[in-house]
Amino acid sequence: MKKYDVVIIGGGPAGIVTGMTIKKQFKEKSVLIIKEEADGLVPCGIPYIFNLLGKDADKNKMGHKPFIDLGGEVIISTAVKVDKTNKLVTVKTGEQFGYDKLVFATGSIPQIPDFIQGHNLQNVFYIKKSYSYIKELTLEISDLRNIVIIGGGFIGAEVAEQLAAANVNVSLIESEPTCFSKAFSPELSRIATDALRKTKVNVLTSTVVKEIAGFNNKVSHVIISDGTKIEAEAVILSIGYISNSQLAKETGLALNKYDDIHVDNYGRTTIKDISAVGDCAQTFGFLTGRSDIIKLASTATAEARILGHNIFGIRIKKSSAGTLGVFSTEINGLAMAAAGANERSAADVNIDLISAKFSAPDRHPGTLSGSSDLTVKLYASPADGSILGGETWGGKSVGEIINIISMAIQKSITVYELVSFQIGTHPLLTSSPVNNPIIRAAEEIIYKVLQIQK
Amino acid sequence: MKKYDVVIIGGGPAGIVTGMTIKKQFKEKSVLIIKEEADGLVPCGIPYIFNLLGKDADKNKMGHKPFIDLGGEVIISTAVKVDKTNKLVTVKTGEQFGYDKLVFATGSIPQIPDFIQGHNLQNVFYIKKSYSYIKELTLEISDLRNIVIIGGGFIGAEVAEQLAAANVNVSLIESEPTCFSKAFSPELSRIATDALRKTKVNVLTSTVVKEIAGFNNKVSHVIISDGTKIEAEAVILSIGYISNSQLAKETGLALNKYDDIHVDNYGRTTIKDISAVGDCAQTFGFLTGRSDIIKLASTATAEARILGHNIFGIRIKKSSAGTLGVFSTEINGLAMAAAGANERSAADVNIDLISAKFSAPDRHPGTLSGSSDLTVKLYASPADGSILGGETWGGKSVGEIINIISMAIQKSITVYELVSFQIGTHPLLTSSPVNNPIIRAAEEIIYKVLQIQK
Repeated sequence: MKKYDVVIIGGGPAGIVTGMTIKKQFKEKSVLIIKEEADGLVPCGIPYIFNLLGKDADKNKMGHKPFIDLGGEVIISTAVKVDKTNKLVTVKTGEQFGYDKLVFATGSIPQIPDFIQGHNLQNVFYIKKSYSYIKELTLEISDLRNIVIIGGGFIGAEVAEQLAAANVNVSLIESEPTCFSKAFSPELSRIATDALRKTKVNVLTSTVVKEIAGFNNKVSHVIISDGTKIEAEAVILSIGYISNSQLAKETGLALNKYDDIHVDNYGRTTIKDISAVGDCAQTFGFLTGRSDIIKLASTATAEARILGHNIFGIRIKKSSAGTLGVFSTEINGLAMAAAGANERSAADVNIDLISAKFSAPDRHPGTLSGSSDLTVKLYASPADGSILGGETWGGKSVGEIINIISMAIQKSITVYELVSFQIGTHPLLTSSPVNNPIIRAAEEIIYKVLQIQK
Repeated sequence: MKKYDVVIIGGGPAGIVTGMTIKKQFKEKSVLIIKEEADGLVPCGIPYIFNLLGKDADKNKMGHKPFIDLGGEVIISTAVKVDKTNKLVTVKTGEQFGYDKLVFATGSIPQIPDFIQGHNLQNVFYIKKSYSYIKELTLEISDLRNIVIIGGGFIGAEVAEQLAAANVNVSLIESEPTCFSKAFSPELSRIATDALRKTKVNVLTSTVVKEIAGFNNKVSHVIISDGTKIEAEAVILSIGYISNSQLAKETGLALNKYDDIHVDNYGRTTIKDISAVGDCAQTFGFLTGRSDIIKLASTATAEARILGHNIFGIRIKKSSAGTLGVFSTEINGLAMAAAGANERSAADVNIDLISAKFSAPDRHPGTLSGSSDLTVKLYASPADGSILGGETWGGKSVGEIINIISMAIQKSITVYELVSFQIGTHPLLTSSPVNNPIIRAAEEIIYKVLQIQK
């Protein structure tokens, strides 16, 4: 039986980054990753397999080669048992591996809506983060003309957009009045839903699925709340993900109310020498410190870096206990992103905020070709002016502008400081220095605050 | 004689933003801008007039309408005298305007190399930030086939690239071994110079101009150090800008050794109720606090915002005394940017630093069309790990990535904090969360520091 300094169960972004960080920073330590499939997928790239990447799952592979290159070892199997007393992991074949430190990076699995009649019919699919499953799915649906997607979050909407672009008749069913409503403010949710409506996707909001109906045990149509039947040769369910924490539970690790593995700021579980990281691990809301559900590859890799540096003892302080949800997407050519609080999420937890937005072309002069309108909306504390959240939409630069805002939130930067924020600008790359939307939105908030104080 | 709460001399970005900020935050205050020409230009957009904007200076106009819309007033004239005792400004026509607060935003003017023989020949031009001058220049050179540009900084190189793209035979002469060497590190200077060499521009580095030669008092060729004659129907001199501070000097304001107007952190000069802002005002190096020369529209507008909020009394603290130079450009489709220190600039002022870089595709998976390679190089203090500078090059997202780095420098964020920096990522918009180049470069620095400590 081989013994490793670290055994990691799971080879998604959280597991791979944990492994890479350890092998990079502690060359001499032996690290084994146990992963179920030889090939992994870039999680957020999955929707693009269905069109942009030419229906070829191989173009969205995420392998473990960078980890191997650093001296890590990988075994393709499924961990079935952890003996925490003797520090052993048993895999499906019966083989055992000893560990000094064990990491659960078991990820998340699609939520199965057993409350929907017909959810277990043939041709009802999920967006599983599994190479073999998605490869099979692309083949299964390749000749189909009518597909219904249930759930208008990012994955559901992006898959809908991609399938529609590949000339499939797609209906997207969302129970809320807008899609994207868990991550975006009411305003940006509307903008994003409108963008989706401009594609060929048939977007049905405020719509509840009554039944997935079938013929010969195979999906034939979806019946919605008002009785309408929508023809469907396949249904893709995308209503969320839950922690894959069964093995952790069997091992005796404490789980929280969402079945996420309980961890401290450094990924340490309730059992010594066992950590958890990524989608299977608990997160805490950035502003409230309350248990939250944020399952993103970006937050998973941030946790993995912290864990990787600190697994043999805390050397690098985590700069914030909370997990900041930062979300980006692009629908019909409109890039959109959000970080932290908005009016709705703040009201949910009774946080006071003040907001303002500013729009300007993302090139200057705006007459330059390729210029598009860029908007930044900031949310700040009316008391001290610190940035609590932000949203931005427009051209592709949105993808990095949200990270400026994200840094401002994480460092408690205030609107007052943003007045003297020094930026780089260039005609072909950014808005003009006169009209930088982050700074101008901050100034609008200052204006509002000073008017209130009068 | 009309009296204003604020009179601003100069209508470039610094003057306009000062005026707009005051009118936005203090509606009831009267503000007059005295500007020389009715139409202004977006300063950094000037190179693009020569090709991308169709040789049409009108497409690069920067007007004062946003200031007028806020209730500001503008007079088109030249200020010729300031009576600081009676608080009066006299313009060319003899008209006088009273002020409570006066702002010098007189900008900068091209440096004239009187040491170069022939610099005053006909068809020797400069890149003046003047609408009428540039409009005239585009007409004057519109039929010319051979143009020599002297000075390989941003403006010179960008104008060279644009003219070459418009099928002019352009030679660019730079005395240093690379172009862009004042703003970029030796490495990025080389990359940028190589990018320029891939265009049709004839780039002559380590080359000194011996003489601008003429025939009938008009430019005919440029003679360089080795005696080579380069045919030139026109020469464009772009060797830098100096403060337009003559009137300030006559008014009795103290100037520094560069002839920039001496100011404190809030733009206040040595005379009560007179401020200066933008290119004509002194700047202090961000890391050293020493007098520096940074003349950028972006830093000018940052100063203008601080001045505008604080002109009637300090209400919003400036978050840093120093001016951070943040530079961006795009040459031959390669976007490049730099902020703060690099090996060369740090060595000049004896600042110790450690650097590392990381490259990854700026989309994920990298197989997505439109993906290009993105590099981030970070410079940090080996003592506390705080970010002192950064560079980035690749696709257009570079324009905002440098602003993430810029914020990190301004907030003294350390490489250790960047390990837990939470970012937003999306396949179509950013690098993968596994390979965010800022975070990975920070980790490389941590690795180096920990290796040194061993």
